[in-house]
Amino acid sequence: RVNGDRLWDSLMDMAKIGPGIAGGNNRQTLTDADAEGRRLFRTWCEAAGLTVGVDKMGTMFAIRPGTDPDALPVYVGSHLDTQPTGGKYDGVLGVLGALEVVRTMNDLGIRTKHPIVVTNWTNEEGARFAPAMLASGVFAGVHSLDFAYGRKDPEGKTFGDELKRIGWLGDEEVGARKMRAYFEYHIEQGPILEAEEKQIGVVTHCQGLWWLELTLTGREAHTGSTPMNMRVNAGLAMARIFEMVQEVAMSEQPGAVGGVGQVFFSPNSRNVLPGKVVFTVDIRSPDKEKLDRMRAKIEAEAPKITDALGVGCSIEAIGHFEPVTFDPKLVTAVRNAAERLGYSHMNLISGAGHDACWAAKVAPTTMIMCPCVGGLSHNEAEEISKEWATAGADVLFHAVVETAEI
Amino acid sequence: RVNGDRLWDSLMDMAKIGPGIAGGNNRQTLTDADAEGRRLFRTWCEAAGLTVGVDKMGTMFAIRPGTDPDALPVYVGSHLDTQPTGGKYDGVLGVLGALEVVRTMNDLGIRTKHPIVVTNWTNEEGARFAPAMLASGVFAGVHSLDFAYGRKDPEGKTFGDELKRIGWLGDEEVGARKMRAYFEYHIEQGPILEAEEKQIGVVTHCQGLWWLELTLTGREAHTGSTPMNMRVNAGLAMARIFEMVQEVAMSEQPGAVGGVGQVFFSPNSRNVLPGKVVFTVDIRSPDKEKLDRMRAKIEAEAPKITDALGVGCSIEAIGHFEPVTFDPKLVTAVRNAAERLGYSHMNLISGAGHDACWAAKVAPTTMIMCPCVGGLSHNEAEEISKEWATAGADVLFHAVVETAEI
Ligand SMILES: NC(=O)NCCC(=O)O
Ligand SMILES: NC(=O)NCCC(=O)O
Repeated sequence: RVNGDRLWDSLMDMAKIGPGIAGGNNRQTLTDADAEGRRLFRTWCEAAGLTVGVDKMGTMFAIRPGTDPDALPVYVGSHLDTQPTGGKYDGVLGVLGALEVVRTMNDLGIRTKHPIVVTNWTNEEGARFAPAMLASGVFAGVHSLDFAYGRKDPEGKTFGDELKRIGWLGDEEVGARKMRAYFEYHIEQGPILEAEEKQIGVVTHCQGLWWLELTLTGREAHTGSTPMNMRVNAGLAMARIFEMVQEVAMSEQPGAVGGVGQVFFSPNSRNVLPGKVVFTVDIRSPDKEKLDRMRAKIEAEAPKITDALGVGCSIEAIGHFEPVTFDPKLVTAVRNAAERLGYSHMNLISGAGHDACWAAKVAPTTMIMCPCVGGLSHNEAEEISKEWATAGADVLFHAVVETAEI
Repeated sequence: RVNGDRLWDSLMDMAKIGPGIAGGNNRQTLTDADAEGRRLFRTWCEAAGLTVGVDKMGTMFAIRPGTDPDALPVYVGSHLDTQPTGGKYDGVLGVLGALEVVRTMNDLGIRTKHPIVVTNWTNEEGARFAPAMLASGVFAGVHSLDFAYGRKDPEGKTFGDELKRIGWLGDEEVGARKMRAYFEYHIEQGPILEAEEKQIGVVTHCQGLWWLELTLTGREAHTGSTPMNMRVNAGLAMARIFEMVQEVAMSEQPGAVGGVGQVFFSPNSRNVLPGKVVFTVDIRSPDKEKLDRMRAKIEAEAPKITDALGVGCSIEAIGHFEPVTFDPKLVTAVRNAAERLGYSHMNLISGAGHDACWAAKVAPTTMIMCPCVGGLSHNEAEEISKEWATAGADVLFHAVVETAEI
């Protein structure tokens, strides 16, 4: 069994870096806080006897050698970056849980045939630079390095420049590493485990996603002196599209979600009708047909709404992953470990995207989840208990050691 | 007649300060660009023999003495501040038009019994600090100086600090000056004069306004892993309120407008349902009953919409002025001047708010308007012709000289 107190202490120490405004964290990717979090993590890795490599996307690989020099490593990790108003556990639990696996192996003198590599992927959240899961996406060959370097944050700074600026541009070719397996431990970020009173989520699938960025072009005009019938009202068009997205998602229940988290009005002045409105529709489903049907409906309906108001509409898909089915052998290893350890468990479909979704393209992959209070995540109030954190790390420990072979 | 070329040249010179991104201006109030614009204006005033006083709101009063030391001055002005993506004429035409009146009087050797005071009011636009027409509002006793100093821009900087920072905090008590009359010359910012092919708008009234700032409280949550029925979706509530505001305005046609120009989503991340949404509803009507009925409807309907979604809703009125009736004698003076000069003219109700609305509380006041292309304003593409600008300045010249008495 892992040392739950040590894991918890590390979580709390990491949470001191990039504090939020309401008890959570703002440690967005490629900020100074991210750099500081990475330095602390490297210190811990080196203290545990690991050697840290960094690739050209800034992803950190902390290696514990195996006994067989030719054996492919087992990768275990997640991400240390957070949302602007994020929680202390989203991603961090998976990285520090992996570190705890290694620390426990050290305590118990366990050597494995296959090396273990604790991994911290860059820019999982996608809050600062879209799309999410950017570094694992490049690793899996889904995006080019140039595409990733050119991504811009809302201030116009590029991913490439910011990676250099914070000093975490590594020299390893991205995706050169071959994996025997990839494990990711994560909080559920949804309400199911808590409601079902289960300690462990055995993650069998991950739902797919489309991010559709809509740019509506209205006519900037005075809110007071522009008669109603002369308005080209991009804000009103946006409102109607919000309602339509809601209807589309509701028409595909159960097993589908749709909503909008990000909106930019331009010039965003109280007495100016917006000339430009940009927002991102986030739609997801574990069912590829539903997912693609939602996209098609939105792409068909949005222009009808905007046309009726004389507003221009362009739609760009800026994020996508297909629904994922995780590796049946690894899924079974996780389920067996939970069973062996006496933890209650159930099968789960991940509602959020994870680096595991891209890793699954290039290696046998699976995930383990623990509950979170009220299903709340992407919120500074995100909370888990030490017992939940520990149970998942125990299962991770068993599944990883079994896969890495003693 | 005024010198239209000189007026136009001054407009073009001022437009070089705080250039926009699309041919217009970004010379928002109390920015460095505002300070630079004020310095240029002061230079011009002094060259025309005027003495410039500045009050504690930063409003500039450039005085041309009258022949009777006891006679109350005639004030003529508008504002030099712009929207973030504003035009070259909104406000500026009224200030430089007033300066052209004085320059023409100098050319012709005209002395008046009453002094003439060319006026540049601070923060007319209200884009950076709400409400609009702030300095004229303090002048008229509608707002206290402390209220004005405490207004914050989106970055949290206060009006008081910024006024000091740019070096335009004057020593005159605000509102101490007494006026014989106040004239304001402005572009229409609406489509009527151009459509009716009239050169001059004789402004008889100004419509009233409410700015209602709505703060909606949802629950920050993951867009992917939060099931539709567990969402507390403040963004969706906002969309429904936009639609409701549109319906309310349409139900009061003609003679009413309603819309939204400014929206803030928090945390504004693509995969986070917003925990907080703040936006400002702008409603206007020349009919006080309609105006107040629209406000009442919105305040009654918005909480029903938010309640149905479990979203919190608070509403604060952050800007208001009642419909204004301008001084009949001054209106007649303007109409007679247009008639005398042979310019086509019509009566007009101002769709936008102006410093004249507050001045009307403390002095006989009226406005003169010229057309603008397509009725477009609060847009960098705002355009007028030199001929239009000149015609209105001619009318201003005649009406002002008549009122100031030779
Ligand atoms: N786990 C997580 O929140 N990842 C960010 C990508 C997503 O929105 O699903
Ligand atoms: N004229 C003008 O645009 N003033 C700003 C205040 C308003 O929104 O009416």
